Amino acid sequence: MTTVAAYAAAAAKAPLERTTIERRAVGEFDVLIDIKFVGICHSDIHQAREGWGEAVFPMVPGHEIAGVVAEVGPGVRRFKVGDHVGVGCMVDSCRECENCRAGLEQFCVQRPTWTYNAVGKDGKPTYGGYSQKIVVDENYVLRIPDGLALDVAAPLMCAGITTYSPFRYWNVGPGKRVAVVGLGGLGHMAVKIAHAMGAEVTVLSQSLRKKEDGLRLGADHYYATGDPATFDNLRGTFDVILNTVSAPLDYDAFLSLLRTGGAMVTVGMPEEPVQIQFSSLFGNRRSLTSSSIGGIRETQEMLDFCAEHGLGADIELIRADQINEAYERVGRSDVRYRFVIDTATI
Amino acid sequence: MTTVAAYAAAAAKAPLERTTIERRAVGEFDVLIDIKFVGICHSDIHQAREGWGEAVFPMVPGHEIAGVVAEVGPGVRRFKVGDHVGVGCMVDSCRECENCRAGLEQFCVQRPTWTYNAVGKDGKPTYGGYSQKIVVDENYVLRIPDGLALDVAAPLMCAGITTYSPFRYWNVGPGKRVAVVGLGGLGHMAVKIAHAMGAEVTVLSQSLRKKEDGLRLGADHYYATGDPATFDNLRGTFDVILNTVSAPLDYDAFLSLLRTGGAMVTVGMPEEPVQIQFSSLFGNRRSLTSSSIGGIRETQEMLDFCAEHGLGADIELIRADQINEAYERVGRSDVRYRFVIDTATI
Repeated sequence: MTTVAAYAAAAAKAPLERTTIERRAVGEFDVLIDIKFVGICHSDIHQAREGWGEAVFPMVPGHEIAGVVAEVGPGVRRFKVGDHVGVGCMVDSCRECENCRAGLEQFCVQRPTWTYNAVGKDGKPTYGGYSQKIVVDENYVLRIPDGLALDVAAPLMCAGITTYSPFRYWNVGPGKRVAVVGLGGLGHMAVKIAHAMGAEVTVLSQSLRKKEDGLRLGADHYYATGDPATFDNLRGTFDVILNTVSAPLDYDAFLSLLRTGGAMVTVGMPEEPVQIQFSSLFGNRRSLTSSSIGGIRETQEMLDFCAEHGLGADIELIRADQINEAYERVGRSDVRYRFVIDTATI
Repeated sequence: MTTVAAYAAAAAKAPLERTTIERRAVGEFDVLIDIKFVGICHSDIHQAREGWGEAVFPMVPGHEIAGVVAEVGPGVRRFKVGDHVGVGCMVDSCRECENCRAGLEQFCVQRPTWTYNAVGKDGKPTYGGYSQKIVVDENYVLRIPDGLALDVAAPLMCAGITTYSPFRYWNVGPGKRVAVVGLGGLGHMAVKIAHAMGAEVTVLSQSLRKKEDGLRLGADHYYATGDPATFDNLRGTFDVILNTVSAPLDYDAFLSLLRTGGAMVTVGMPEEPVQIQFSSLFGNRRSLTSSSIGGIRETQEMLDFCAEHGLGADIELIRADQINEAYERVGRSDVRYRFVIDTATI
């Protein structure tokens, strides 16, 4: 066991404060990672505030982890000391169910072991990446390719795969029209990735405030959803709408923008139930659907894709003592586009 | 112009009464059909009662039409006098949009000309099949193959294609598990068709009252949704759930029965908005979607499939003066499984 510094919330809605936690001894197939950077995902805040239901406290959030291998267990074959690696939302899963066998560990029927706010196979709570070290089974560790700096790679572990996976699943590529709703942490990665996949990309944002950024990131078009004309003009346009906004939306209005057979994929998860009119789906064989991160194999594929296309996140690097302020700013969408904690400051 | 006898509702919620309507003269590409049988679809009732919004009155419902060709225009190539034919929900569409050209006339961007409760290209209201004759452009007339009796074929024009089309689109076949929610007019055809396609078919009905029927129609399993154990036991089971119920349901509970990547396809359209929790979609890349009849080409394919497999509807044949009583009984789900009007009694 190793004692490591971390930032934790002692209870729901409590501010995050410096503390120490225990990491398990390095087992046969384990990798000890010196965490260098960790992203602040909106879902860290949802969970730390119990917006998604009862949570495990104290909570050390953080599932956008990038670091360097410091030690490996004797059975580890895929990593060696000094490798650049990442850890995302999962640190384990049952490995035996049909989904795990298919490389869809995020849909493990026993539920994956989430990186934090969960209980590990050893019966102990899991603690996330707002800390200086973590021990993870090598099967749930990703390789960060050369050419991707660790700070801009960290957010790919959640924001990258969360947008990459649905684009692959719903066949985004040349000739396809993709709308990205919301230009935040997820949205800005979605624009970069859809553009790199060859699609025609439109950002739908509340206002035109970030239009210049959107076009720079790779969008072909940028419209304000606050303007009702947007919905009139774009009716029936998109093959895929990726909704990165977790606040409630007028889903019926967005569904009307889909082409025949199109899918609206929500990756921002609202805390409250949503209402839809079935007539919104009925008119055009449209689907309302969702996607949740990606499997380990696909996460590696995403990292390789991002390295090949030179895609990292646009980040604001912060010190650990700025986490609570950063949470406030994320709540106001005041970040371009992802806060990343320099864990040396913990 | 020809004057023909019909049953019409004079206003929303008024009883249907015998009247006469005018049918247009047979044009160059028109087919005059002696209607023999017409099914009573639940959507006739939704529309006659203005449950789906403002409607056109007087209204002659009926879009499950089967009859015999009585006359053809000089340009008609596909039909001759004496042919057995059907007409479904559409009698025309723009024929030029991307959906029409793809054989998806039901999704015509100008909207199809619905068989009733609509305005035709001539600017006049359209009247449906609760009448003795109808004139329809040959491109919107279907051939009813030999071996399908007209009375049991009539309901295929809506109930048949409404269930066949989503099963084809969502790849129902051997090795797939399909649930059919509701064993009514649509549901009983869904069971027959999914079984004929080679899928493992489960009926989910409020009670076990119709279990014997369900198994006879081709279901492999039959469970009561009134029993909470059903939802526990069947969690994560189905590739496709076809929901034929237009009354509000606990969609979240049904979505939990889908396998990874599964789709819940609703073909019964609720009059009110529905509520769902996004977490129901999030857990397993599930989709909530809908389907609406099918295109003309696919409707013909469905009729040929049904003829090949000997699938007609299970019907209760009624006289025209029983229509209002039949509407009441449909409202109580008291029909096995489709009322069909013998139009000779109009």
